[in-house]
Amino acid sequence: MEYGMYYLEQVTPYEAISRRMNKVLASGRTRFQDYFIFETTAFGKVLVLDKDVQSTEKDEYIYHETLVHPAMLAHPEPKSVFIVGGGEGATLREVLKYKTVERAVMCDIDDELVEMAKTLLPEWHQGAFDDPRATVITEDARGWLETHPDTYDVILIDLNDPVGEENPARLLFTVEFYELVKRRLNPGGVVAMQAGMLLLTHHHQHPVTHRTVREVFRHTRSYHNYIPGFFLNFGFILASDAFDPAAFSEGTLETRIRERGLGLRHLNASFIEAMFVLPKDLLEAIQRETMVSTDALPFYLTEEGEARQAPYQP
Amino acid sequence: MEYGMYYLEQVTPYEAISRRMNKVLASGRTRFQDYFIFETTAFGKVLVLDKDVQSTEKDEYIYHETLVHPAMLAHPEPKSVFIVGGGEGATLREVLKYKTVERAVMCDIDDELVEMAKTLLPEWHQGAFDDPRATVITEDARGWLETHPDTYDVILIDLNDPVGEENPARLLFTVEFYELVKRRLNPGGVVAMQAGMLLLTHHHQHPVTHRTVREVFRHTRSYHNYIPGFFLNFGFILASDAFDPAAFSEGTLETRIRERGLGLRHLNASFIEAMFVLPKDLLEAIQRETMVSTDALPFYLTEEGEARQAPYQP
Amino acid sequence: MEYGMYYLEQVTPYEAISRRMNKVLASGRTRFQDYFIFETTAFGKVLVLDKDVQSTEKDEYIYHETLVHPAMLAHPEPKSVFIVGGGEGATLREVLKYKTVERAVMCDIDDELVEMAKTLLPEWHQGAFDDPRATVITEDARGWLETHPDTYDVILIDLNDPVGEENPARLLFTVEFYELVKRRLNPGGVVAMQAGMLLLTHHHQHPVTHRTVREVFRHTRSYHNYIPGFFLNFGFILASDAFDPAAFSEGTLETRIRERGLGLRHLNASFIEAMFVLPKDLLEAIQRETMVSTDALPFYLTEEGEARQAPYQP
Amino acid sequence: MEYGMYYLEQVTPYEAISRRMNKVLASGRTRFQDYFIFETTAFGKVLVLDKDVQSTEKDEYIYHETLVHPAMLAHPEPKSVFIVGGGEGATLREVLKYKTVERAVMCDIDDELVEMAKTLLPEWHQGAFDDPRATVITEDARGWLETHPDTYDVILIDLNDPVGEENPARLLFTVEFYELVKRRLNPGGVVAMQAGMLLLTHHHQHPVTHRTVREVFRHTRSYHNYIPGFFLNFGFILASDAFDPAAFSEGTLETRIRERGLGLRHLNASFIEAMFVLPKDLLEAIQRETMVSTDALPFYLTEEGEARQAPYQP
Repeated sequence: MEYGMYYLEQVTPYEAISRRMNKVLASGRTRFQDYFIFETTAFGKVLVLDKDVQSTEKDEYIYHETLVHPAMLAHPEPKSVFIVGGGEGATLREVLKYKTVERAVMCDIDDELVEMAKTLLPEWHQGAFDDPRATVITEDARGWLETHPDTYDVILIDLNDPVGEENPARLLFTVEFYELVKRRLNPGGVVAMQAGMLLLTHHHQHPVTHRTVREVFRHTRSYHNYIPGFFLNFGFILASDAFDPAAFSEGTLETRIRERGLGLRHLNASFIEAMFVLPKDLLEAIQRETMVSTDALPFYLTEEGEARQAPYQP
Repeated sequence: MEYGMYYLEQVTPYEAISRRMNKVLASGRTRFQDYFIFETTAFGKVLVLDKDVQSTEKDEYIYHETLVHPAMLAHPEPKSVFIVGGGEGATLREVLKYKTVERAVMCDIDDELVEMAKTLLPEWHQGAFDDPRATVITEDARGWLETHPDTYDVILIDLNDPVGEENPARLLFTVEFYELVKRRLNPGGVVAMQAGMLLLTHHHQHPVTHRTVREVFRHTRSYHNYIPGFFLNFGFILASDAFDPAAFSEGTLETRIRERGLGLRHLNASFIEAMFVLPKDLLEAIQRETMVSTDALPFYLTEEGEARQAPYQP
Repeated sequence: MEYGMYYLEQVTPYEAISRRMNKVLASGRTRFQDYFIFETTAFGKVLVLDKDVQSTEKDEYIYHETLVHPAMLAHPEPKSVFIVGGGEGATLREVLKYKTVERAVMCDIDDELVEMAKTLLPEWHQGAFDDPRATVITEDARGWLETHPDTYDVILIDLNDPVGEENPARLLFTVEFYELVKRRLNPGGVVAMQAGMLLLTHHHQHPVTHRTVREVFRHTRSYHNYIPGFFLNFGFILASDAFDPAAFSEGTLETRIRERGLGLRHLNASFIEAMFVLPKDLLEAIQRETMVSTDALPFYLTEEGEARQAPYQP
Repeated sequence: MEYGMYYLEQVTPYEAISRRMNKVLASGRTRFQDYFIFETTAFGKVLVLDKDVQSTEKDEYIYHETLVHPAMLAHPEPKSVFIVGGGEGATLREVLKYKTVERAVMCDIDDELVEMAKTLLPEWHQGAFDDPRATVITEDARGWLETHPDTYDVILIDLNDPVGEENPARLLFTVEFYELVKRRLNPGGVVAMQAGMLLLTHHHQHPVTHRTVREVFRHTRSYHNYIPGFFLNFGFILASDAFDPAAFSEGTLETRIRERGLGLRHLNASFIEAMFVLPKDLLEAIQRETMVSTDALPFYLTEEGEARQAPYQP
């Protein structure tokens, strides 16, 4: 490590990553979280919220294609989409690539972050906020969904892990929240979510989320991909009551990708299918899991990645 | 980061990983390389050679299953195996799980490292060095293969990346070396190798190696897996003149895994197949690659992960 | 920072020092504290207890000469010496350089540390433990002094700062403890102690200790020196009821240093006198200080270096 | 170390300091050097040039009082002052506290740095640049002194160490440069300079500079002080042909400090005198030194702090 500026991120309680910063574009605190935006040589701009790297300019396409397209491609004709989180606008950007989409509602509680993204992170949103089909709401997503009965073809959930007992996001990882999400899906609707790192010692976020989602949806499927900017393999979940969202009939995916003109950079039909194939040890960890997170006993993660259940005291 | 001892590893020239060490078991230098062996909380013992983490106790099974079994399972009845590198003995251990194997020859130039592994890394070799079918040679693998005309059903190559113009390992990544390897394969033989990290900014080791191997073998297939202890996605290559080693007929893999009684922890039949499916951007990087590494102009990697060709001056 | 092993020490809550370790000689935990002993290029062996570097091979002579000789030289003929702490034996070594010394009692609670020092830190003790004049006691120094009425010409206190409310050492920084020390001094006796780093933001250890000692002794004098291995300027205190220990008459120091044949490497007469001259800002901080640490309300330091008083609950 | 932004500075080749940055105010490169300006909790704003911390808001008064006042107080009535380096304006500020000063010329080659300091570092210059007695020149100091025959009562040299064979500052540390400086002194004039860290393993900058200055001036005196923001003890040199600048007659310093109304925060008369008292090991290192830096063979420092002589090839 040469002299200069670094960003330090604890990946586990025992392993940390230092990233050389060429320039710091912004740092401070919104009402909800610390933020850091800086430039690096290999990953371009990097966005950090609280202690975690959220996204890097050079590889955000991998993360956002992985979060968005399996769900959108699983749906025969997605017209309306709701996004929980996703403040920098790249999830919205990917959603708006679908010409069938008539309405995309993004709900991120952190209005200051959204404003900052508009100015400082154009590489992410690429103008998506200005699309007439897009609506941005800066409120608590659960509260908003509870009070607004509109329904959607696809709901995408992009939240940080609920680390720490005090974490208010814990109530966005419960059976009751997923039931609310399900009520806001149109018939034939599908939900996708980011669901935790898949690290040897940190398997618990993913299995518990999988187990909890499975309480609510008839079909719950895990998939995974390596996100270079995180130096981590991440888990995702696709769920639907209507159909198995990972069981594409021969050629369907390929046709949809071509017909919908998505210009994918990382995904193709066969790789999407391969993402749904899990290694044996992870499969077993998911099968073994018994913890179901509820509003009465929502789970949270310890710094070690262990899952614990306890009442949430705001 | 709490007070205490850390191991610092530069993953790219701009990003570094610090690992908290609970205890240092050994550190020093053999005739060939620096070594560090220490204990960590999450990954157990960690082995570092020169600047790179080679293996961790808790996840080495992922790396070694990934390196060994696709090749061994591709072969209908592997009886003889040659291992280039692999000094800590875990590749040998996985190979010896096959009851058909009558002879496994491991060739690692670093005799001091092999001796140290026998004492300090029993979790890796698990007694493999004492198996009567095993032979350990501590010489330069290329020299040894050139002078010993024995042939093998499977050859496994487990070498570090040829980083730096002075790196003597550069001559183990050339057309001529792979031709030598091919001459030492029995008819129907197959070769597998570790083939570099797959990081956004570090794609060059893998494409160049793929392109070079393809000069020599009729069938060259890349596959990949996430290695938690490296915090990286790694590429591997399987090659054969006899058959496409990634084209298993329906049910073959599953049957062989069951019949051969391998006790796999990470791999299963469907995940092995999924590892051979590459994302679009990596596929394109491989297809675009034109560099072929030869003895006259062997390639090397810069610290940035770029590949360059230049004569090797020992 | 090159790849390899480092020791990380937080010097303030915001500034940390990384030291490259060439080799780790020992690491673990005694009943009382974590310990780390390692080799470095510039400072030789380094001893760390809990989170603080205690001493380095190459500069320990500076620290121990500074702690020991002002007190020993202030005394006209030191025959008996009691050392609180000082487990590695270098304070004892410096004390035994005085031929007048007939009895040197070192009391360090950590018997495991003392044993380790005998084997691993010969550069510190240099055989001092084997001197027939030396006695080593491994008990709580306060308890021992309370129950043993022997008295001494010089008492040297070498303790870590009482950082943290739970720190048991808090009761070794109170008026009552210093009164006990005074009762164990012979007439004409003198006490010296290490008294905290003198860092801009960390002035509170020193002023509070000075203020507390002044409650007990007629003459209390601060002095300071830079300890390279700590990268810090450190404060020390000399106190006596009999005479002002920093007011040497012309030529006395020089004569005593010469006559006693001490072979000093860092100190000479004029530098000893200069160490007692404090800069204006530190003088003012000491004068302003009003906190007196008592058994009822012993002070402790926060991580920020602020001093707080609160009852100690063992 | 908590998550967040850090500045990494190598203090020796083996020891490094990380400083937590709350906010980055500027970072980039002028024509001459890299710069970083950031805010920290304990030291306030920090200015870094190339790889070294130059100054921190909270302790710069210690450094600048130490550099400026011994020379200014040694002079009976300083009217004209020349400053080599000192781009942030704090040396100038201290100089202008003397009402006798009629002309203060600061010469720093880095015009971009000076402009930045005006805006971003008001805590340093405190308006000094606007004083009608001040002149700022942004040229090479040696070239300017050679072509401008004006003479001064006091010359203050505030330069970074000449680390590295390519360092153009090497020609500002030679006999010929100090002879030029002497020619630009009025009769009775005095020069002061920052002269390197005094660290166990880094003694060579100071002894060599002392030895070189002594070739030119009849009276050459070293002094030292701990600079908290550097975590280092620093050496300084005062030189004059007219008188011994460290030999103040009884009461002179005290009187001058009072009469000149300087409002010193760190220095007082007795501490100034104490700064000129060196420890035995440093005295011996200075006495042992034989290297004299000349234009033909200017010295430079290696990263290890060793001094070497070699021709300078621009």
